[in-house]
Amino acid sequence: MEQIRTYIEANKDRFLNELFDLLRIPSVSADPAYKKDVARAAEWLKEKFTALNVDRVEIYPTKGHPIIYAEKIIGPDKPTVLVYGHYDVQPPDPLDLWESPPFEPVIKNGKIYARGSCDDKGQMYMHLKALEVMNAMDAVNCNLKFLIEGEEEVGSAHLGEFVKANTDLLACDIVLVSDTSMVANDVPSITVGLRGLAYVEVTVTGPNRDLHSGTYGGAVANPINVLCEMIASLKDEDQRIMVEGFYDNVVELSQEERTKMAEKPFNHETYCKDLGIADTRGETGYSDIEVISIRPTLDVNGIWGGYTGEGAKTVLPSKAHAKISMRLVPNQKSGEIMELFARHFKKIAPPQVKVEVNLHHGGEAAVLSIDSTGYEAASLAMKETFGKEPIPTREGGSIPIVAMFQDVLGVNTVLFGFGLNADAIHSPNESYGLFNYFKGIETIPRFYHYFATLNQK
Amino acid sequence: MEQIRTYIEANKDRFLNELFDLLRIPSVSADPAYKKDVARAAEWLKEKFTALNVDRVEIYPTKGHPIIYAEKIIGPDKPTVLVYGHYDVQPPDPLDLWESPPFEPVIKNGKIYARGSCDDKGQMYMHLKALEVMNAMDAVNCNLKFLIEGEEEVGSAHLGEFVKANTDLLACDIVLVSDTSMVANDVPSITVGLRGLAYVEVTVTGPNRDLHSGTYGGAVANPINVLCEMIASLKDEDQRIMVEGFYDNVVELSQEERTKMAEKPFNHETYCKDLGIADTRGETGYSDIEVISIRPTLDVNGIWGGYTGEGAKTVLPSKAHAKISMRLVPNQKSGEIMELFARHFKKIAPPQVKVEVNLHHGGEAAVLSIDSTGYEAASLAMKETFGKEPIPTREGGSIPIVAMFQDVLGVNTVLFGFGLNADAIHSPNESYGLFNYFKGIETIPRFYHYFATLNQK
Repeated sequence: MEQIRTYIEANKDRFLNELFDLLRIPSVSADPAYKKDVARAAEWLKEKFTALNVDRVEIYPTKGHPIIYAEKIIGPDKPTVLVYGHYDVQPPDPLDLWESPPFEPVIKNGKIYARGSCDDKGQMYMHLKALEVMNAMDAVNCNLKFLIEGEEEVGSAHLGEFVKANTDLLACDIVLVSDTSMVANDVPSITVGLRGLAYVEVTVTGPNRDLHSGTYGGAVANPINVLCEMIASLKDEDQRIMVEGFYDNVVELSQEERTKMAEKPFNHETYCKDLGIADTRGETGYSDIEVISIRPTLDVNGIWGGYTGEGAKTVLPSKAHAKISMRLVPNQKSGEIMELFARHFKKIAPPQVKVEVNLHHGGEAAVLSIDSTGYEAASLAMKETFGKEPIPTREGGSIPIVAMFQDVLGVNTVLFGFGLNADAIHSPNESYGLFNYFKGIETIPRFYHYFATLNQK
Repeated sequence: MEQIRTYIEANKDRFLNELFDLLRIPSVSADPAYKKDVARAAEWLKEKFTALNVDRVEIYPTKGHPIIYAEKIIGPDKPTVLVYGHYDVQPPDPLDLWESPPFEPVIKNGKIYARGSCDDKGQMYMHLKALEVMNAMDAVNCNLKFLIEGEEEVGSAHLGEFVKANTDLLACDIVLVSDTSMVANDVPSITVGLRGLAYVEVTVTGPNRDLHSGTYGGAVANPINVLCEMIASLKDEDQRIMVEGFYDNVVELSQEERTKMAEKPFNHETYCKDLGIADTRGETGYSDIEVISIRPTLDVNGIWGGYTGEGAKTVLPSKAHAKISMRLVPNQKSGEIMELFARHFKKIAPPQVKVEVNLHHGGEAAVLSIDSTGYEAASLAMKETFGKEPIPTREGGSIPIVAMFQDVLGVNTVLFGFGLNADAIHSPNESYGLFNYFKGIETIPRFYHYFATLNQK
């Protein structure tokens, strides 16, 4: 342990500068305009892996953005850990809300500010530096495989395909992912539950052309008004989702589980204050923690239609659009939910408009047993470096690949995340704490140590 | 009459080319990016007036876009007509729906396609060409004043001010405006009623920053969902507007008036077919013609919020926006309605969000008596050139300045429009018929003739 700390301390600046180089590459996977930058980020990582004396590193092109695979195999008698991460990032907009340019990382009050600093470049790169540390200590005691993709922020469009086609290459005992957050720096935690995702885009078409709202207004159904009515009808005043069959497979947690969840430190006032809101607006009958973790949701992620420029235009537009996503809980299947949504949405459309529903992408919810050696190793490692036993938590976000690894490789995933909710991922001024970055690099080698011990063959 | 036709026939091409030159100037008043072009259009018109040997022509700058004034005075014993028009146009977007560039006029099956071809450059320029015709015949028999503004499409922001400050300069017996449409080329009509307008922009703010919809979704009220709920609640299923006090001053038309209105040729099937809609969606209890003319409306003209780019972004945005306008009928005061809307909209906002309502601009509804000499002169002129007596109609659009001229100058306005609803004003592929352009130039001189006769002093 002491050795690890000393080595990290001695190489702190370089560890940071390397991460900054990666953060400067605007690898936005959602926007084709950044395609070259995404490819550049992949090349950059390949070089870094090469420098770590891995046995093998390759860039696999996909129909979308490339996947990087690297491995260091020390022997068949050792357990194998597959590290997953992603080097693509969310779009940075709205740009005007950034206090410093999203792709020019800066350090302010102990945090690194940049798009991707936490999600997931910062957390993913900890694993490369952890390998460097272990190389230096000659302490590699597991077979290590690295799978780093460039499409996580667009639903890992081509990862499933790749994993299915390479099950031998990726064979492992456990998947290790750092792409989640802890309760607080002094309250280490491990995510054992994740929500799934169903993402759709809808278009409501009224008249075949934009019309003058004075000449036609009153007679012709306005697609924006209609879209608003349809969206409003998707929830009742208890914030229950009205899509037919939506809750059919949702598992109600036992009172015991809910009581255990309630132990997670959470302060309603602080939460609201941090967000600048007067109150939360969750589903009736469930606590704040529950509605963001064990209950499904429906949120409009984007809406547009008509004239949105400066000034006033009296148009009755032909079309209105919205991007709508639903967070799912265990047993809700994303494909099924998207179908239910599409059927429901078309059903509630008034006869005066046409409705189109495009199914974007989805992912399944997942749960990790706290009795697994994976959870145990992660728990022991954190206890050692944080001086505190971590608590198991459930997160509201989605990492669809977790369920995919379970299905295709038949292995569990340990969500070994070191971020914080305050890191504002997916938002302007995303940040990642220096404490968290270096604490991650320090903790990861200990995970391998305990995992190897618990899985001696 | 014959002389007039011959002169127009002999100068057809030049009359068209001059209009094309004006249409090529992208004088979009709503977008500051076009400020120079708007000014250029004003200069262009000044030159044309000069060439018409008017007694005086001046460009009056305003805090917004300039106003052009020109006059030809033949004697105090003659009645005075003030011609109003505007040289600014609506923004051309969505550009991708134009079959030819909006500012490169082309002629296809007898129509001129370009932004502003009908609204209002084409109709306004007919008046300059009509003056040329009268000059050539030496037939000017009224004092003519021309007031051409550049801010009609943004609510005539500075016109009222100008008119109030120049009541002597603008003193007249009647205002003549060509900025409306007829029922059909073989069904000439004169607009005697117009709706008013109240235009507002609303912003709903939820959390103080964009959030990850997975981490916060379910607990934090989503401003887009909330905006949709609020907009949906503004109308009931009978399409009645639910803003408190909205209908208080609306005058119900007598059964007799409604019966007369019903005589206007209107075919529901043709109307829907032209717009590509299965049905209309008007206020319960009123006909299609009534809901677009004598009943008030509420339409969302634009909405935006969250991620609207390519791909999928799982954001729970901080803000959502909408531009909302209401068409008003006689006795509804726009200022009052905007206040009622603002109060109501803030009242229905849930406690989890903040709401901002910005009052854009408004205008009052107007009605012209069919017993006025203005209406009579227009009717006689059209009967002569169309060979058919025009019918009085009410239009759903707004020309706020009509009420303003009534208030400030104490005179009526004759809406002497030659467009058609099919001209798609405010939409992509706006057009204006060659028949309509030349028929207007032919008819206007006859209006002066009859107006002079009916108003001998």
